[in-house]
Amino acid sequence: MSLQLLKALPHLRSATTAVRTHIARTTWSEHIATTVFFGTTTTKATPAAPPPPPPTQPQQPVPPATTSWGTKKQNRKVKLRSAAAEFIMSNPEIEAQLAPLRERVQEQGNLVRDLKAKGAPEIDVKKAVAELKARKKLLEDKELALTPSVVSFDRAKMEDLLKRRFFYDQSFAIYGGITGQYDFGPMGCALKSNILALWRQYFALEEQMLEVDCSILTPEPVLKASGHVERFADLMVKDVKTGECFRLDHLIKQALEKLSKAKDATPALQAECEDIIIKLDGLNKQELAGVLAKYNIKSPLTGNDLTEPIEFNLMFATQIGPTGLVKGFLRPETAQGIFVNFKRLLEFNQGKLPFAVAQIGNSFRNEISPRSGLIRVREFTMAEIEHFCDPVLKDHPKFGNIKSEKLTLYSACNQMDGKSAAQVQIGEAVASKLVANETLGYYMARIQQFLLAIGIKPECLRFRQHMSNEMAHYACDCWDAEILTSYGWVECVGCADRSAYDLGQHTAATGVRLVAEKRLPAPKTVEVSEIVPNNQALGKTFKKEAKNITDALAKLSLEEITKVEEQLAGDGQYKLTTADGQSHDLGKDTISVKHSTKTVHVEEFIPSVVEPSFGIGRIMYSLLEHSFQCRDGDEQRCYFTLPPLVAPIKCSILPLSNNTDFQPYTQKLSSALTKAELSHKVDDSSGSIGRRYARTDEIAIPYGITVDFDTLKEPHTVTLRDRNTMKQVRVGLEEVVGVVKDLSTAKTTWENVTEQYPLFEQQEASK
Amino acid sequence: MSLQLLKALPHLRSATTAVRTHIARTTWSEHIATTVFFGTTTTKATPAAPPPPPPTQPQQPVPPATTSWGTKKQNRKVKLRSAAAEFIMSNPEIEAQLAPLRERVQEQGNLVRDLKAKGAPEIDVKKAVAELKARKKLLEDKELALTPSVVSFDRAKMEDLLKRRFFYDQSFAIYGGITGQYDFGPMGCALKSNILALWRQYFALEEQMLEVDCSILTPEPVLKASGHVERFADLMVKDVKTGECFRLDHLIKQALEKLSKAKDATPALQAECEDIIIKLDGLNKQELAGVLAKYNIKSPLTGNDLTEPIEFNLMFATQIGPTGLVKGFLRPETAQGIFVNFKRLLEFNQGKLPFAVAQIGNSFRNEISPRSGLIRVREFTMAEIEHFCDPVLKDHPKFGNIKSEKLTLYSACNQMDGKSAAQVQIGEAVASKLVANETLGYYMARIQQFLLAIGIKPECLRFRQHMSNEMAHYACDCWDAEILTSYGWVECVGCADRSAYDLGQHTAATGVRLVAEKRLPAPKTVEVSEIVPNNQALGKTFKKEAKNITDALAKLSLEEITKVEEQLAGDGQYKLTTADGQSHDLGKDTISVKHSTKTVHVEEFIPSVVEPSFGIGRIMYSLLEHSFQCRDGDEQRCYFTLPPLVAPIKCSILPLSNNTDFQPYTQKLSSALTKAELSHKVDDSSGSIGRRYARTDEIAIPYGITVDFDTLKEPHTVTLRDRNTMKQVRVGLEEVVGVVKDLSTAKTTWENVTEQYPLFEQQEASK
Repeated sequence: MSLQLLKALPHLRSATTAVRTHIARTTWSEHIATTVFFGTTTTKATPAAPPPPPPTQPQQPVPPATTSWGTKKQNRKVKLRSAAAEFIMSNPEIEAQLAPLRERVQEQGNLVRDLKAKGAPEIDVKKAVAELKARKKLLEDKELALTPSVVSFDRAKMEDLLKRRFFYDQSFAIYGGITGQYDFGPMGCALKSNILALWRQYFALEEQMLEVDCSILTPEPVLKASGHVERFADLMVKDVKTGECFRLDHLIKQALEKLSKAKDATPALQAECEDIIIKLDGLNKQELAGVLAKYNIKSPLTGNDLTEPIEFNLMFATQIGPTGLVKGFLRPETAQGIFVNFKRLLEFNQGKLPFAVAQIGNSFRNEISPRSGLIRVREFTMAEIEHFCDPVLKDHPKFGNIKSEKLTLYSACNQMDGKSAAQVQIGEAVASKLVANETLGYYMARIQQFLLAIGIKPECLRFRQHMSNEMAHYACDCWDAEILTSYGWVECVGCADRSAYDLGQHTAATGVRLVAEKRLPAPKTVEVSEIVPNNQALGKTFKKEAKNITDALAKLSLEEITKVEEQLAGDGQYKLTTADGQSHDLGKDTISVKHSTKTVHVEEFIPSVVEPSFGIGRIMYSLLEHSFQCRDGDEQRCYFTLPPLVAPIKCSILPLSNNTDFQPYTQKLSSALTKAELSHKVDDSSGSIGRRYARTDEIAIPYGITVDFDTLKEPHTVTLRDRNTMKQVRVGLEEVVGVVKDLSTAKTTWENVTEQYPLFEQQEASK
Repeated sequence: MSLQLLKALPHLRSATTAVRTHIARTTWSEHIATTVFFGTTTTKATPAAPPPPPPTQPQQPVPPATTSWGTKKQNRKVKLRSAAAEFIMSNPEIEAQLAPLRERVQEQGNLVRDLKAKGAPEIDVKKAVAELKARKKLLEDKELALTPSVVSFDRAKMEDLLKRRFFYDQSFAIYGGITGQYDFGPMGCALKSNILALWRQYFALEEQMLEVDCSILTPEPVLKASGHVERFADLMVKDVKTGECFRLDHLIKQALEKLSKAKDATPALQAECEDIIIKLDGLNKQELAGVLAKYNIKSPLTGNDLTEPIEFNLMFATQIGPTGLVKGFLRPETAQGIFVNFKRLLEFNQGKLPFAVAQIGNSFRNEISPRSGLIRVREFTMAEIEHFCDPVLKDHPKFGNIKSEKLTLYSACNQMDGKSAAQVQIGEAVASKLVANETLGYYMARIQQFLLAIGIKPECLRFRQHMSNEMAHYACDCWDAEILTSYGWVECVGCADRSAYDLGQHTAATGVRLVAEKRLPAPKTVEVSEIVPNNQALGKTFKKEAKNITDALAKLSLEEITKVEEQLAGDGQYKLTTADGQSHDLGKDTISVKHSTKTVHVEEFIPSVVEPSFGIGRIMYSLLEHSFQCRDGDEQRCYFTLPPLVAPIKCSILPLSNNTDFQPYTQKLSSALTKAELSHKVDDSSGSIGRRYARTDEIAIPYGITVDFDTLKEPHTVTLRDRNTMKQVRVGLEEVVGVVKDLSTAKTTWENVTEQYPLFEQQEASK
């Protein structure tokens, strides 16, 4: 069985990157993108439709020369809409406006289904799918435009704060900076560490996964086998004079949009341009080059000529060792490190399936022109899980624990039919086969639990199923956890059933059989055919070639042995090619075929892989957006409502004033917090207490202990303040660290604390 | 002050890498090293002496083609000696044997001091130092040879176990593997995570450091400023036919040793060879090329000719972005990411000094031919701290906490005098100026506390001071924490006072002033000299060049302004060169110099940096060696005595047999351990309990809970077993998780537990 599977794989290689590459890949908001639309684009969707209705405030194009971030003032005050699908569905007036758009999507969806059923040529299917995507996008834009806005989000204001308090910022800025690279400052680094620690607890510990830590530098053959060397590329063109690079699809789209909007554009030209834009996704390199030539497209920056389209591989290349002969790449994903160690890991697990392997680490993609902050970067942290299981046994022992969890599922079917996402219990989704199997469903529910635990808003989270054309051939099912941000729906976690593809590829490339064994229910008798060489005759006839011949004979497959038998029975001769490429005619006197039977107790198979893959930077960015707030009535007092579990610092200690009497108490508190392993910050600077609270709010510190004059009296007490409500309680000095510990580890809530301790009513003065 | 300092720096650049590069750099046990000596080499020392006395068992050369590890059977059973300096010093017989060697070291040490005092030419000093090192090595070898062996260590056996249970193993082995790259399996990864978590607690949390996470890909200008582009290189030669590369110094050393050992070697030739070997460290590229030519040295593998010496930069190069024009490197250390962010970090700390920044991350060095397991690798995890402070205020507020900590210090002075390392209280060492300042001393003591906490043997740890010739010019003092392993003394943590060097370099390269400010004790009046341009006259005379001229004038330094004034007073003309390289004669009519006074309240200065830098892989490897044990009387039952704090898995759960009645109890225990955040492993496989204990011992699990028939009865109890003593106690089912938690977090000890609970006496059968 395994061999058959293996032989079916090589031709599928070309599809490998279709699924593997979409983390950190978008087709929008790139170098030549000039407008950022909100709540309208999925990072994977290709926006081929006319621009959506203008947002609340007019937006100006971002000049391509702007490489910094946090300074695009035109992003200020854009209404961010939540995906309130339920609201829409229950409002007949809105639904009436959407109905014709839904119909157009469904019509095209049916056409795609028809074409596939008829086995139509691939290019026709691709074009139909491109049109389907365009219609889907029109529908989604309209949906969002009609949804009442629920949040007013000011990205520039948030980015100003993130820079100012150094959550993260552009790397090497004093040297001019590099786009697509960010350094995490103390707050960003701690937030990331806390998210990863919780991830380890949610996945590695809870599911008893095997966590590994593999090399980043990867030799070429490994990435050839995975398909990355051949396929992990984008098409680009260069300005022949300046060398400036442009992503080809974006460039053409922009040029044709400009052309069709020109005053002298005829309706025929407009239709032509629109047609090409819709089909852009389905065009190959040659066809794209044709479009470039036909419309005489030049560099949008200089008007200079452009080169022919060039395939640009997105991996960073280097040489390993001093000879310059060993080519290597920085890994574009962490998963391959797990696959190449499969044998060792299976052995560690005492040969038993299923088991899951986890890895947290950095990956690298040399984006042509990254411009979307943390959403698209050249260096990023991933947390990946490879769950290996028997291909025919994909149920999960702990599925019962999560089966009533409700997820917002945006199924491929709904996408094709122009319908919205729907809330479904994961148990039902698996029972109805909407989600392929229990293991996939289990991970989807766990992904949701994790994302909600760190503070992602439930109404801004959905799982979008890949449509069959987006999915690699070998994958059975694939769902992306998408989070709604001001960049639109951003794919943050991929969750795919990848079948036996990866292990098969590495087995084929190395000859090392990455397989598992299972006991057959009953021993099986199998027929064995083998070639029996007559060594004496071979030696006599072929002299020192005889060794090569017997080696080659030993490697013949079952099919070939059958062929040998047929030919010997026919003209009595078999032509054998040895490893050195020589061919020899073997007669009946030198070889014969023997048949026998053998009893086998185990069966070999290539395990299937279910892969949840987390983009940590994207999750972190989404979380920051979801938790950004300004105080009512004071737009200048912004803060992050990060849950205590992931907040960078758990607690501040603020002496009310410079009075030296407070010092022993702040020191004692600091030592006690350190002993309790609680990160904290002492702010004994001279600002007013209100101003200092505001400063701690900015860096998301959830709790603040203030040492005041009552602290000096017996019984010693302090006040404890909650960032979100700004309420304070009075707590005994000896107790307060325990209270903060329980709050920070989610063992209690602020509500409970306010019930247990007296409120401290003094107004927070912000002088 | 800062400017003066700055101007003094550029010529020091060449020395930058002397200190910065020594983590992961050794000059021994390399490609052409043929014998591994035990307990005799420091990774930094250049062994130029004749081979040390043969170890207990004869060792065979390692053929250079062997790239795998864990298979060098000749390393089996070598006695590893502890650095029992005190034993030696108290044994007059041994001391008598060492006296002449000590004398020879001291004699040479004095010569070096003399040469330096006289300001002798650098090359003479270098040669004298090389001879000093050679004599030191002879002494150390003899010392170790005379120390009674305290541990019998079998490296091959340990490596077999590490491979077999996948602590770590060569990366991409199914593709043939890459030397110097390792993948950490589940046990190695967990051990590393636990060491890093403890590191964060010991340093980042305890000292309230700012932890950051910076980019790995680094653009060239940053590493030009740091000196790495120019200096971070080794010399090598290539086989002209096969392209095989050799590190030049090692190649020459091996060739000359062979030559002088040949039967027909004359005493004159032998002396000549020995002389060159001793001076090897001091020879430059040209001189080394001369040696190659004179002795007609060929490839030791093929006998082919070799190329001229080539400088091989050890950084991995790549291109950032699609144009191919932005050259970048994988960072060779994490520190530069901190320096380039200094301004943001100082601001985050509200402008106050001192503060410390921590970073954990991967760095990369393209070693010419790495062959020492985890000791020398191409990709490694570092944990670095940069402590920024006022150069004239290097005391540390918490120094009192650690001042009575005893450290084994191997001072530069003792090294020059042929004396041994000595135990010194760090408080005394700082008071006597042996250690330069409190901050450096504080970190040394904390480094020791950390290393001992994770399980490093105190008798195998010393701090070796850099001798002045090893230290970069700008560094004030530098001590390496060295750990004794079967590879000799391995430098695992560097701890250096780097003065203002790094910030100065980046300020000079970017023009961004990486400085701090301090309030002057009293306001100061300073004279200000400035150039006043006569804009009208300039415009008239120079037309559109006038703008360039005023720009250039604004940039003149105080010294240059003084020169302008002198020249105007002299011949009335000043020749100014503008940014575009043009020069212009300016007369008195166009410019004048104005003097005024200004009151300043603050002073700018470049902070000093104290840098503790941890090589995590080296520490981990040393720890594995120190904790490797075999059971008395059973050489096949090996295990690691890793402390529970860092052990990869804290606890095993073993049902006594397959009896299904045990299942609910194992499941309940597993859930409770997960809830308590304790990593654990359920082993319900069919092996005997003794065999399963042995398997858990191999992966260092410190505690085992066994569910047996007594567990089924009321009151429900289980047995708890200690890995190190193999003793068991009987504990209540409800209590046992709490006991394991307290043991794993060092809140209690096994001794306490045995006093509290009844011993369970049943013999551990190892059938």
